[in-house]
Amino acid sequence: MAQTAEQIDDGIDTDLYLASVQDALEQDDVDTVNQLVEGLHAADKADIINQLSPQERELFTHMLSAEQFDHAILPELHPDVAEQVMEILGPDVCAEALSQLETDDAVQLIEEWDEEEQQDLLRAVTAQQRSEITESLSYPEDSAGRLMTRKLVCVPHYWTVGNTIDYLRAHQDLPENFYVVYVTDPKFHPVGRIPLGRIMQSSRDVLISDLSTSENYTVNTDTDQEDVAHLFTKYALVETAVVNQEGRLVGTITVDDVVHVIHEEEGEDYLRAGGVKSQDISISVQQTVKQRFPWLFINLLTAVLASVVIGAYADTIEQFVALAVLMPIVASMGGNAGTQSVTVAVRALATRQLRGGRALYAIKKELIIGLLNGLLLAMLMSFGAFLLYQDGMLAVIFGAATILTMTIAGFSGAAIPLLLQRLGVDPAVSSGVFVTTVTDVIGFLSFLGLAALLLL
Amino acid sequence: MAQTAEQIDDGIDTDLYLASVQDALEQDDVDTVNQLVEGLHAADKADIINQLSPQERELFTHMLSAEQFDHAILPELHPDVAEQVMEILGPDVCAEALSQLETDDAVQLIEEWDEEEQQDLLRAVTAQQRSEITESLSYPEDSAGRLMTRKLVCVPHYWTVGNTIDYLRAHQDLPENFYVVYVTDPKFHPVGRIPLGRIMQSSRDVLISDLSTSENYTVNTDTDQEDVAHLFTKYALVETAVVNQEGRLVGTITVDDVVHVIHEEEGEDYLRAGGVKSQDISISVQQTVKQRFPWLFINLLTAVLASVVIGAYADTIEQFVALAVLMPIVASMGGNAGTQSVTVAVRALATRQLRGGRALYAIKKELIIGLLNGLLLAMLMSFGAFLLYQDGMLAVIFGAATILTMTIAGFSGAAIPLLLQRLGVDPAVSSGVFVTTVTDVIGFLSFLGLAALLLL
Repeated sequence: MAQTAEQIDDGIDTDLYLASVQDALEQDDVDTVNQLVEGLHAADKADIINQLSPQERELFTHMLSAEQFDHAILPELHPDVAEQVMEILGPDVCAEALSQLETDDAVQLIEEWDEEEQQDLLRAVTAQQRSEITESLSYPEDSAGRLMTRKLVCVPHYWTVGNTIDYLRAHQDLPENFYVVYVTDPKFHPVGRIPLGRIMQSSRDVLISDLSTSENYTVNTDTDQEDVAHLFTKYALVETAVVNQEGRLVGTITVDDVVHVIHEEEGEDYLRAGGVKSQDISISVQQTVKQRFPWLFINLLTAVLASVVIGAYADTIEQFVALAVLMPIVASMGGNAGTQSVTVAVRALATRQLRGGRALYAIKKELIIGLLNGLLLAMLMSFGAFLLYQDGMLAVIFGAATILTMTIAGFSGAAIPLLLQRLGVDPAVSSGVFVTTVTDVIGFLSFLGLAALLLL
Repeated sequence: MAQTAEQIDDGIDTDLYLASVQDALEQDDVDTVNQLVEGLHAADKADIINQLSPQERELFTHMLSAEQFDHAILPELHPDVAEQVMEILGPDVCAEALSQLETDDAVQLIEEWDEEEQQDLLRAVTAQQRSEITESLSYPEDSAGRLMTRKLVCVPHYWTVGNTIDYLRAHQDLPENFYVVYVTDPKFHPVGRIPLGRIMQSSRDVLISDLSTSENYTVNTDTDQEDVAHLFTKYALVETAVVNQEGRLVGTITVDDVVHVIHEEEGEDYLRAGGVKSQDISISVQQTVKQRFPWLFINLLTAVLASVVIGAYADTIEQFVALAVLMPIVASMGGNAGTQSVTVAVRALATRQLRGGRALYAIKKELIIGLLNGLLLAMLMSFGAFLLYQDGMLAVIFGAATILTMTIAGFSGAAIPLLLQRLGVDPAVSSGVFVTTVTDVIGFLSFLGLAALLLL
């Protein structure tokens, strides 16, 4: 495996790899495929599956599952791909695979299925796992309760380092990865935490209570995973305790699970801003068309709205065709300025930088920035329009409409995401449409309206 | 500190907090400010500083630095804010603060300064730190060499668990956080790694070589930080070894540093796609206007290009003013379809999902999706246009131009980011402009061109 880092470094080996797998699949050559993926890390196998076409993926999954299916692949797959692969594997192989996964990974896969299928799968796993998974599923979606693992290491505060080390040596059923030992009171409330390194550096007779730090970044089972990710990022945590409503320690979340959350949440905002529902590179053309159509349709309605405005001034345009030539520029500048403001506002909201009094400050600031950039660009644009059409009034109207549109773009670019957030609507998804609708309508209306008023 | 998680959970306490600080600043009330921030985690203090206006920030920094300035605040600040705060603090206080930071944090701050200022600062720190920082700065920007810390725990393979624990107890100058013990050969090449938990669970006589896993996710000092982040995310790592060009172990990178990288890199792509250079909520209006103007100017040029196309058909529009009303819809639908394709392609490139043969597959797929969504929407749009204008030929031209534009939008939305990546240009920054330029020009050209050909 020493070459993995190299592969990632230049990205070439993996390409060749993928190509070889695809060739072998095309020739239905089971032996070569098995040889190729043998010894690969589950994440690498998942990476290959993610990148295959749906048809290739089906072939590949069948070949992999002819032997023992590597259960660790499943949590690494893109959710949509995992669904397809699990359908191909069938409920028996899935249940077998799930029973070998840690509960948090199993839950992450199961939660994508509908209730009936979930019941089928749960019937096939062990009683203990069933109760653990059912409990996890009882927590809200995307909550700390779903992310956490139940296995953790906790000791009472009156123990010594020696007691702790002896306990760890005697209990081999501890979590695969743990970085923190929690200190609890008799009621199982967490009262402190000790990084493993500190325990290892202390002699056997040191008291746990002397090592324990009271910095206590505890989250609740119901805490949203985005808030958990924010906590990990802000305080550079590696592991945190999860408590239930009574404040008892019920699980821990480790950073490896949170890294995925950060990666996904941030990626989601990016995709949504571009009008895409999910990272649909792995799903079929039909599914993609279906997923993207509604967004395009909404945008069609806003485009029609803008064109209604233009239609109202058809007579004016007929007399001054220059208006038709210049009007898309006004709308386009407004749209771009608005998008800049929306981007900053949505990002600031996602990173918790726009709270309380900062909101009004941000709206005012964006309005001023829109106005200033509008003034600068309007001077250039008016000058250009005057050179082209030798019409002073037209040039002035062109500039004035630009300034007005860009100022409103700045204002609405900040105000609309804030308003949507207040209303409980995800600003990352819909702010863009609203803002460009506003800038299109204001752009066309101000330019054509002023022209109708002053040029005729 | 037990309430920190609560604060984050509902976000209300922090608002009140910030408001209280702002009130105290306005009244120049040093005592209240000090009382408010006393005992706060450095990340929380940094959070407050990030959210203050530049004027408030200056006041606040002066108040904080009247007492001993908490050096741990600096690495937590937004880079632009850190620059402002360090200027306020002055070189002496900065050097004092830097000398107390870990090398990776100090480097992260220093690298933002220009060479002369760097030299001034370096003269003020200790000789050892100077040499460490200088070495770090010799690695490329955004490389593993700049992210890593030099302090690490490594042991020879022939040691036992007992030897290792004794060594750890005897050496108290080890890194603050470490999760892995590295195993090295006599030439200091890493040959294995052991998670701390495994060592603690083993008895003193167990051989290190029996615990060591050969999974070796080693990165090179020159590896780009984005590749490091990708490695951590993919294999759920907590710590990784960094080797120099000779393959010797020279440092480690822990996940807390990588979480920041993931957060920033993903955020950057989002901001760039929206035409914003940095998360400029913390910088002044003048700076923001300066940063955003170039993007708007580039977009003005592309809007002018589109309007040149319209200008070429001014005569046609004069005769059929319906063209002016409908043409923005064609361009807008092309722009939205293109943005969807760009978003997916840029995201897929960033997450390494478009390699080798997948690139051509993706372009073909996006073209087909553009065509299919184009067909669906064109039917609706042609029908609407026919109802409005009772002109069959106009409706057909409207639909045909939409289909053509959306197909080309899909194609160029995938092809342009891939091409830019090949050319070594960051596709996240510039793909959007190129694609909307293409869709605007094709949209206006096809609609007006067909109209000139068929309606006159």
